[in-house]
Amino acid sequence: MPLPNDSEQTKRGRPRSEEVEHAILQSAVGLLEERGFRAFTIEEVALRAKVGKPSIYRRWPSKGTLALDALLSEYLQLLSPIDTENLKGDLTAALAQWFEAIAGTSTGRSLVGLIAEAQSDADLATAWRKSFVLTARSQNRVMITRAIERNEIEKGADVDVILDMPYGAAYLRLLNGHLPLSERFIEKVVAVIVAGANSVDVKPS
Amino acid sequence: MPLPNDSEQTKRGRPRSEEVEHAILQSAVGLLEERGFRAFTIEEVALRAKVGKPSIYRRWPSKGTLALDALLSEYLQLLSPIDTENLKGDLTAALAQWFEAIAGTSTGRSLVGLIAEAQSDADLATAWRKSFVLTARSQNRVMITRAIERNEIEKGADVDVILDMPYGAAYLRLLNGHLPLSERFIEKVVAVIVAGANSVDVKPS
Repeated sequence: MPLPNDSEQTKRGRPRSEEVEHAILQSAVGLLEERGFRAFTIEEVALRAKVGKPSIYRRWPSKGTLALDALLSEYLQLLSPIDTENLKGDLTAALAQWFEAIAGTSTGRSLVGLIAEAQSDADLATAWRKSFVLTARSQNRVMITRAIERNEIEKGADVDVILDMPYGAAYLRLLNGHLPLSERFIEKVVAVIVAGANSVDVKPS
Repeated sequence: MPLPNDSEQTKRGRPRSEEVEHAILQSAVGLLEERGFRAFTIEEVALRAKVGKPSIYRRWPSKGTLALDALLSEYLQLLSPIDTENLKGDLTAALAQWFEAIAGTSTGRSLVGLIAEAQSDADLATAWRKSFVLTARSQNRVMITRAIERNEIEKGADVDVILDMPYGAAYLRLLNGHLPLSERFIEKVVAVIVAGANSVDVKPS
């Protein structure tokens, strides 16, 4: 009888290297969930994934970049496609989904830990922008593009500004913790943006 | 002949304890400027201020809370009162002043370092909210209150949401570094808020 791992490999038909990568990422996700980013180590991931540390370092130059990929894979699984056919509905749903994924969850704690770490680690900051920020943004950008196609927003509108505003307000409350991240807060932020983006000239610079 | 320190004391007429506090804060500001938050230590501040470590710990329980007060005193000095007699002008000036104070400056680096540190230090996070966030916010709140008095914004408007939005977008670009914090960016963010806050129901929850 094949070992569970072997049958798994056969079913998936992954090449060996992809399998190793998958095992490393899964172990990293589990470790982040249990211990958080501060206590996260390459050693422990190697132990759990049953690989040597060089197998990890060949793929990820640092603990930060590995944690980042683990977080991204976990985070993306928590998001589902959104299309409510209007900008207000889309932005509200996207922020609610983000909130659901990060409020009081290990994903949220890892996210915050990585943003913090990236402030004093330039390589991690670059990786953070290239993988997390760009991936999340390109998913959200679609909502604004559709709003432009529906003539809800002017053609020349600055999509980046319209994305920075709701997520900016939400991240500010997440990181500062000065006021609650409530459903009502999300509604108000979205209301200001939808009304404001429609009524003013927000041309790209 | 009195020592320079003694004459200083007489001129200022500060009580001894206030003087010590002032010396500690000044040394902390200088050290933060030179070395940044990561390399900031209570030992070095004590050396520079010519006080014992207990004199510092009696006033500040940790390196983070001392750095926070040092940062706050430095930051507040960089801000001057704003009153352009309209919300758009006030918000634009406030964000421009914030940008000037933090972009590429040691104050900005300390600010970012402290926000990062507060994510894994609950005591520092509490101190951060109580001193930095509340102080900065109460200064800015005045702008919104005046806009309400001028009938630029409805009476029931949620002042906190209107403050979170411009600063949220600005901090998002500061912390993620995905796009530049430009003058044009500030103008657009303010334009969306002014138009949006005027035209929608943003009642307090």
